[in-house]
Amino acid sequence: MPALTSLQELIEALRALPGVGPRSAQRIAYHLLQHDRSAATRLGEALLHASGEVRHCARCNTFTEVEVCETCQDPERDPSLLCVVETPADQLMVEQTLTFRGLYFVLMGRLSPLDGIGPKEIHFEQLIRRISDGVVKEVILATNFTNEGEATAHYLAQMLKARGLKASRLARGVPVGGELEYVDAGTIARAVLDRHTL
Amino acid sequence: MPALTSLQELIEALRALPGVGPRSAQRIAYHLLQHDRSAATRLGEALLHASGEVRHCARCNTFTEVEVCETCQDPERDPSLLCVVETPADQLMVEQTLTFRGLYFVLMGRLSPLDGIGPKEIHFEQLIRRISDGVVKEVILATNFTNEGEATAHYLAQMLKARGLKASRLARGVPVGGELEYVDAGTIARAVLDRHTL
Repeated sequence: MPALTSLQELIEALRALPGVGPRSAQRIAYHLLQHDRSAATRLGEALLHASGEVRHCARCNTFTEVEVCETCQDPERDPSLLCVVETPADQLMVEQTLTFRGLYFVLMGRLSPLDGIGPKEIHFEQLIRRISDGVVKEVILATNFTNEGEATAHYLAQMLKARGLKASRLARGVPVGGELEYVDAGTIARAVLDRHTL
Repeated sequence: MPALTSLQELIEALRALPGVGPRSAQRIAYHLLQHDRSAATRLGEALLHASGEVRHCARCNTFTEVEVCETCQDPERDPSLLCVVETPADQLMVEQTLTFRGLYFVLMGRLSPLDGIGPKEIHFEQLIRRISDGVVKEVILATNFTNEGEATAHYLAQMLKARGLKASRLARGVPVGGELEYVDAGTIARAVLDRHTL
């Protein structure tokens, strides 16, 4: 067996991309080399640069290239509101709604005892220090609505209440544009329970 | 507007991947940085290495890292059979069928006068030199069954016949596993015309 050629190595490495199997990896590699070699070089450099430069904000754990991220340093934001999310990608999703002007705390995971992920792994101590600054008044729990995300929210809510802080959770309900016929019963049930008066 | 962060640069660069829009690029970037930074580094290096090392075989134009590719140098192959394909990816597809033991010639394109791609761009002169070696007896035209691929095959077939060489074309017909009900009429018509006696 000869050593891998650089083309074979590229195909192997492309499989690290989410959702890319052997066949797609091959297609991507050939596409880049055939049509757009300068883009391939640029992507290679961007990957190395980002892997080396991007680290976690000392205050909220999100991705940043400096000690404390831009959001945490923004004086326009309301420091009494703290939104707790599982990942930097989740933070970005909340941010893109343009409706939240408070600060964030990124757990970098969710409680999952079966996978050995306990309070320590989700930066629980750091979160307690963060909310004990006397400025945070309400913590919005925006973990996912999966079993693990819900368990994490429940656990954090208990802890927050014990410290006299207000904990809230994102509303569940029918998605915007959703038709009741195609929405699952559990979601409709929650939408009925969480209904608001007009 | 501040300069792009390395994360934003990575998201931009990822859009060079085929089929990746702004949203997928974002998801891929966050996935790599959250879950698999060593794979990101490895992919970055593989891209730079392949972009720098991979060039075209002097004989058949396919991707290689040496002057003449492995396939062209393989003494086990039948040099009297030459398969003409549009791209290295097409060559790989034919190769993976394990049914063809001749050699290849990669056009690196197909005739497309509207896009300014004429005989020169598809290495026509080089193909003529290649088939004039006195060894090639049959040229299998395996360009795509698109309008442009068909036109290219037609053009090459004329040229080959004028030089007394045998030109053949891949068969068209019902795909393996195909059900007539779901196959288009044009394909069935070709399958009837190209039927073989049992």
